[in-house]
Amino acid sequence: MRIVALLFERFTALDIIGPYEVLSRLPDAVIRFAGKETKEYRDPHGLVLRSEHSIQNIQNADVLVVPGGPGIDDILDDKEILDWLRSIHGHSHWTVSVCSGSLLLAAAGILNGRQCTTHWRRMEQLKKYPVNVRQERYVHDGKIITAAGVSAGIDMALYLVSKLADNTTARMIQLGLEYDPHPPFDCGSPAKAEAELLNMYAQLRSK
Amino acid sequence: MRIVALLFERFTALDIIGPYEVLSRLPDAVIRFAGKETKEYRDPHGLVLRSEHSIQNIQNADVLVVPGGPGIDDILDDKEILDWLRSIHGHSHWTVSVCSGSLLLAAAGILNGRQCTTHWRRMEQLKKYPVNVRQERYVHDGKIITAAGVSAGIDMALYLVSKLADNTTARMIQLGLEYDPHPPFDCGSPAKAEAELLNMYAQLRSK
Repeated sequence: MRIVALLFERFTALDIIGPYEVLSRLPDAVIRFAGKETKEYRDPHGLVLRSEHSIQNIQNADVLVVPGGPGIDDILDDKEILDWLRSIHGHSHWTVSVCSGSLLLAAAGILNGRQCTTHWRRMEQLKKYPVNVRQERYVHDGKIITAAGVSAGIDMALYLVSKLADNTTARMIQLGLEYDPHPPFDCGSPAKAEAELLNMYAQLRSK
Repeated sequence: MRIVALLFERFTALDIIGPYEVLSRLPDAVIRFAGKETKEYRDPHGLVLRSEHSIQNIQNADVLVVPGGPGIDDILDDKEILDWLRSIHGHSHWTVSVCSGSLLLAAAGILNGRQCTTHWRRMEQLKKYPVNVRQERYVHDGKIITAAGVSAGIDMALYLVSKLADNTTARMIQLGLEYDPHPPFDCGSPAKAEAELLNMYAQLRSK
């Protein structure tokens, strides 16, 4: 199972590592990180992940994983990356994204006419593409699965494992990760957060 | 806010990146990865994280984070690491662990007489130390918080942020991570998994 995750500057670490931790536990998984160049990429807080492959050297993937992050806006018109995504998607068994990664798939035209989702704060941006945006934890349409913000990649990846393998394998991995979430607060979506928190969030982000 | 996370060979990636993604969003957080040597450390599936600091060069931390992973068993009697943990813990504001990381804290004597937890599969191993093991998502005792397996580090870190800063800050970060978990299955703890799944898990791990 050849899994390729795209790296770019200012990716969100958990967007990648959530699905990575799930998918790497598939017995036959080989996961490669690929960036436009073979180099070190940093998240907004300094975490380093190295792409040991450049996208030019990867022609095929069974599963294409596109994470999000603040840096996604800088590559939405990067012809080389968009061409590569279209090429890999043309032969992939599954193409998945986490968080704002779906914007890049949309920019490549891969989501045209598709049901899809993204981070709640990116909804309006995604709606500018010819896609059908839905507010769900993850959205499965054909061979594409798009996940909501950051942590949703874990839920999406477990669902993907149930399709790549079977429910038992997905449930074994969930048990191994002790993924029985108990957040100390219940405000993880805009539907659950009060208006004041949403306002504070918007003000902080606009600084 | 000086946060230091220990690296070692065959760490579990999500044990580190879960808390990292939460804590790095604290406005004043500076997170450093420290290993016994300044080098690249690999998780069991090949993911590389580099320690840009050796533990000898780090004498202080406000928050000490100890992840787990299969490699923890190889360092439970590593005097240099145990001495360093005791020294950092002596001055830390908070000492926290994820998954089997609590075994290392126990081996260092830091958990003596304390309430604590670990990954469900490591419970019996932790009980061999003079500690009070509890089956909870995370356990807070004094300035120590120990989390259950892998994904529990996210819940623990949000709780820690509520103590380091306040509930509003923790809830803002939860909203930013869209941490409104909806696992596709409900078997993330041994209490929820049926006996057959637990048996299969045990057989797979004993191979």
